[in-house]
Amino acid sequence: MTLKPVGVVHSPIKEPSLVARTGDLNWEDEAPPASHADYRTSEIIIHPEYTDLLHGVEDFSHLLVLYWAHKVDAEGRRLTKVHPMGRKDLPLVGVFGTCSPARPNPILVIPVKILERKGRTLRVTGLDAVDGSPVIDIKPYLPSYYSVPDARLSDWMNQLLEEMGRG
Amino acid sequence: MTLKPVGVVHSPIKEPSLVARTGDLNWEDEAPPASHADYRTSEIIIHPEYTDLLHGVEDFSHLLVLYWAHKVDAEGRRLTKVHPMGRKDLPLVGVFGTCSPARPNPILVIPVKILERKGRTLRVTGLDAVDGSPVIDIKPYLPSYYSVPDARLSDWMNQLLEEMGRG
Repeated sequence: MTLKPVGVVHSPIKEPSLVARTGDLNWEDEAPPASHADYRTSEIIIHPEYTDLLHGVEDFSHLLVLYWAHKVDAEGRRLTKVHPMGRKDLPLVGVFGTCSPARPNPILVIPVKILERKGRTLRVTGLDAVDGSPVIDIKPYLPSYYSVPDARLSDWMNQLLEEMGRG
Repeated sequence: MTLKPVGVVHSPIKEPSLVARTGDLNWEDEAPPASHADYRTSEIIIHPEYTDLLHGVEDFSHLLVLYWAHKVDAEGRRLTKVHPMGRKDLPLVGVFGTCSPARPNPILVIPVKILERKGRTLRVTGLDAVDGSPVIDIKPYLPSYYSVPDARLSDWMNQLLEEMGRG
């Protein structure tokens, strides 16, 4: 299973805040997580050979973007349990129970809002990808498939999201 | 960017309904799409070396599953524009504007509800994967990240979902 990059992210976010180091996650940004909640505008530049695949995406208000967390190294892909957001006061949990970018297959998924499409450039909000992240896929966002507004979370996740203003 | 399978899907769905052939999508199931809306129970069997990564997933009601559409061949990965669901009466649109399993990187994303976890086996509903699909990733489903209930769709998609009883 080999991925072909179909595009690249241009973002004001230049470095990841959360880094896998010494067998756990570490928050390496001076700003607290909450300040990342207001996502800025990013661009997705699709590689020329995939331009035709974009035909019609602008008829949707939102797209689901899959991208590769390219700053995660081999050590990050081997992590087993982590402290969510590098917070040692939260329980140590399995990587599949966290949003850690460091995971066996560092593919991140996020819905974005389309502001504008110009040729093979999409201007979007809501994209949390670091500048230079390879884009793997773009899909239309379908509420009837992807929205589960009443999904129940773990206690530590509820606490974390509340602290970040996203509870 | 090389993926490692972290598990496999056991499903009553034995063959894909939608197949890439002769440069377009074709619906190859005798049953109409609507009958697939009531998803059956599936199992996700995580490979033994990834068991520890599941620690804590059962504290969430829903997980986001990423899997590889392994029945998509090289021709399917080269499709550019398709008729959604193989329906020649709908407009020809770019693959990134459709849910086609045939796409450059055939990774499908779906929220599932956990019924039970037993060791490295998750029993779930909502998983639309074909039996034998390699699992690529499992994440907790966070409504505040993944739910966009009011996202706007294209006209043809609204028509299709309405016909399938998922409008």
